[in-house]
Amino acid sequence: MVMERVDAYLEAHRATFEEQLKSLLRIPSISAQPDHDLDTRRAAEFLVDDLHAMGLASATLIETQGHPLVYAESLDKPGLPTVLIYGHYDVQPPEPLEPWNSPPFEPTVVNGNIIARGATDDKGQMFTHLKAAEAWLKAGGGFPVNVKILIEGEEEVGGANLEAYVKANREALACDYAVISDTSQFAPGIPAITYGLKGLAYFELIVTAAKSDLHSGMFGGTVANPLNALASILASLKDADNRITIEGFYDPVRPLEAWERAEFAKLPFSEADFRTQTGVPSLEGEVGYTTLERRWARPTCDVNGIFGGYQGPGPKTVLPCKAGAKLSFRLVPDQDPQQVAAQFQAHVAKVTPPGVKVEVIVHHGAPAVLVGVDSPGVRAASRAIEAGFGVAPVFMREGGSIPVVGLLKENLGVDTLLLGWGQNDDNLHGPNEKFSLADFHKGIKASAHLLAELAG
Amino acid sequence: MVMERVDAYLEAHRATFEEQLKSLLRIPSISAQPDHDLDTRRAAEFLVDDLHAMGLASATLIETQGHPLVYAESLDKPGLPTVLIYGHYDVQPPEPLEPWNSPPFEPTVVNGNIIARGATDDKGQMFTHLKAAEAWLKAGGGFPVNVKILIEGEEEVGGANLEAYVKANREALACDYAVISDTSQFAPGIPAITYGLKGLAYFELIVTAAKSDLHSGMFGGTVANPLNALASILASLKDADNRITIEGFYDPVRPLEAWERAEFAKLPFSEADFRTQTGVPSLEGEVGYTTLERRWARPTCDVNGIFGGYQGPGPKTVLPCKAGAKLSFRLVPDQDPQQVAAQFQAHVAKVTPPGVKVEVIVHHGAPAVLVGVDSPGVRAASRAIEAGFGVAPVFMREGGSIPVVGLLKENLGVDTLLLGWGQNDDNLHGPNEKFSLADFHKGIKASAHLLAELAG
Repeated sequence: MVMERVDAYLEAHRATFEEQLKSLLRIPSISAQPDHDLDTRRAAEFLVDDLHAMGLASATLIETQGHPLVYAESLDKPGLPTVLIYGHYDVQPPEPLEPWNSPPFEPTVVNGNIIARGATDDKGQMFTHLKAAEAWLKAGGGFPVNVKILIEGEEEVGGANLEAYVKANREALACDYAVISDTSQFAPGIPAITYGLKGLAYFELIVTAAKSDLHSGMFGGTVANPLNALASILASLKDADNRITIEGFYDPVRPLEAWERAEFAKLPFSEADFRTQTGVPSLEGEVGYTTLERRWARPTCDVNGIFGGYQGPGPKTVLPCKAGAKLSFRLVPDQDPQQVAAQFQAHVAKVTPPGVKVEVIVHHGAPAVLVGVDSPGVRAASRAIEAGFGVAPVFMREGGSIPVVGLLKENLGVDTLLLGWGQNDDNLHGPNEKFSLADFHKGIKASAHLLAELAG
Repeated sequence: MVMERVDAYLEAHRATFEEQLKSLLRIPSISAQPDHDLDTRRAAEFLVDDLHAMGLASATLIETQGHPLVYAESLDKPGLPTVLIYGHYDVQPPEPLEPWNSPPFEPTVVNGNIIARGATDDKGQMFTHLKAAEAWLKAGGGFPVNVKILIEGEEEVGGANLEAYVKANREALACDYAVISDTSQFAPGIPAITYGLKGLAYFELIVTAAKSDLHSGMFGGTVANPLNALASILASLKDADNRITIEGFYDPVRPLEAWERAEFAKLPFSEADFRTQTGVPSLEGEVGYTTLERRWARPTCDVNGIFGGYQGPGPKTVLPCKAGAKLSFRLVPDQDPQQVAAQFQAHVAKVTPPGVKVEVIVHHGAPAVLVGVDSPGVRAASRAIEAGFGVAPVFMREGGSIPVVGLLKENLGVDTLLLGWGQNDDNLHGPNEKFSLADFHKGIKASAHLLAELAG
């Protein structure tokens, strides 16, 4: 009865929800770029206003040393479980801008997808839980469980202030279940519950030699070139089998279990389609593993950015004095980001050629996560997804990192339900990021049902 | 008598010459950057006006498919030698701008040096010959020899149009001596005649894989990363002894002669000073050679620029779809740039890892040059330099490339007198490029005396 009223409210407000999402997506809340600090704050304020409007008077900004947190709670169901919903309102930088078909902060609907930076990661997915909450409050007479909503603005830059806040507020944030929608379905029409995430270790290398740029004719061959040196260091990180060569790197890696390899092999995954989707000439990765295994359960190393010397048009015969790279390792259980940082620094020291100086900057890291698939929360989530999407979810892992999952486990003692509404080709972090509006609405319905399922 | 009047004219016009040089340096004639095409033309027009003003009515712009040539001649001395003076009015891009202490196109005098892009390469040095010509025309009653002046605007971008012009105008440009000041002295107070130059082979590598940037968590480990691949390719170019690993690369290299190694060893060159000047932690280069030998007479390989992925502030976990590098080889006799291009392309094809596509762009190249040190022209130049600088020159080679020297040899059959007025630390192609004003005036005087010496 109540559930039907909630469902009817969702059905009646589809257009409104889409317009509200567009308004949120128009705010360039790029947490990494200081010149967007005011925009980032504006996104937080937008959410507080939205929570107030649906009747959550407790909604408030929580100031941090960086971008503020958004928090709201409804704790009027003593004896019933408490559900903590987490999301993030900050987005990745949109650069490079050239490949975007429409401006990244002017949401555009094409073929049923909404195109904008943050569409799927994570504004669109996070917003499904707010609209589900709105339906319960407006049409259901209140939540069927206790609810805490925590939305951060620094997920894309490491979330250090969220981490401090959670550590300092364990009791206030205590909950029975945590829910995050910041992952993907397995494929269109195949919703999934993600039971494993990779961790992350992110570094920056700065290589210097001479005190200023030099003429490559007058000085070439007599002083080290930081660009050549950087290339040597980066090239040393993997062997021809795409195995990472850093000493000790694989020692703590937990092997894939037999049931996982069997389950992954059963999933309808087409290597040919994956190759077409990405446009690569061939799929490449660590020897001895399938593409899904590499993607979900094996550590990787990617250079994320590289720079140095002359990048303008035409030739310039300069011997540059500085080169840099950003690079990251995706980690699996039971690798420790701090241990990886130490191993990486030792490796760099070992392979740095003479004549240059190297600085290693250690950015944020996170360990990998595995949650148990046989629990009341996961079973409730399965039923809710079936209600929202019309089909039961599959179980998968993911190659991305959501550091907050480890944070919540460690500080609140809860496993997180990772209920992804996105698709693998949503191009999060890349140009023309998208999110299916159909999945947006299915996700809202699944979220609404989840609260009811977790109550019982 | 005449020489004294010429010298007196030079002495009386020092301030005027400096102001004129500043006016020329204020023009941002960056031949590589199309948005500066009008500025580049303006520099050519400035020179034509200057030549007209000194009485060379023949001075004119010669249109090409790119930036115009400046040409003037005075052929009223039948039976006497003809001297072709070459220079270039275009300059390297000033980027990166941040390390400049003053704007690159606002010449500033600091400690007797004039600081500006093009100060030494080549506006300042080229201008010495124009002011010497002016002195002969204004105070000497005309030149003591026949003179042809040819100044191009595309030296920094390969000089293809000059090449076409010289090939099509061999008779008009016929001469007995060619003179270029676009090199350096050995050291302050040690003027030099440069008898050897390195050649150049310049390439650009573009590495691509996926059709757009991807999330490094969702796709890392399954598709090749062009940045990692580019690093592998670049790292493969040299071994730990700093020898270039391209097959066949060293086959045509002419070994240093014994007298050269002995002469170089005698020059007052301090490795410690060179290290301090460049600011490197140690000098590095091909095993088995001294720093001067590496610099002047051994081929080198330097990455000049590298780019790809995210270069903004903070971390971004992107798996980029494209990476690129500009790189060049400095060549020695008897390496052929076209053969090196073929060898380089074969090497790249061999070492490119699977899963990426690589495009090799071949930019301009030039063979190395060696000229005989025992000739009437070199002896005349030695006397002229002694008159201008008060000390006889030493003989040296240079690591830079001046493709026009090979062009003139091949088409006009003349060796070029390379009379450098610059210093090694002038930072040409880098920030805060400079040129000593004292050497500017000494160079003018040496150039004026050279015309008289070549007459006899």
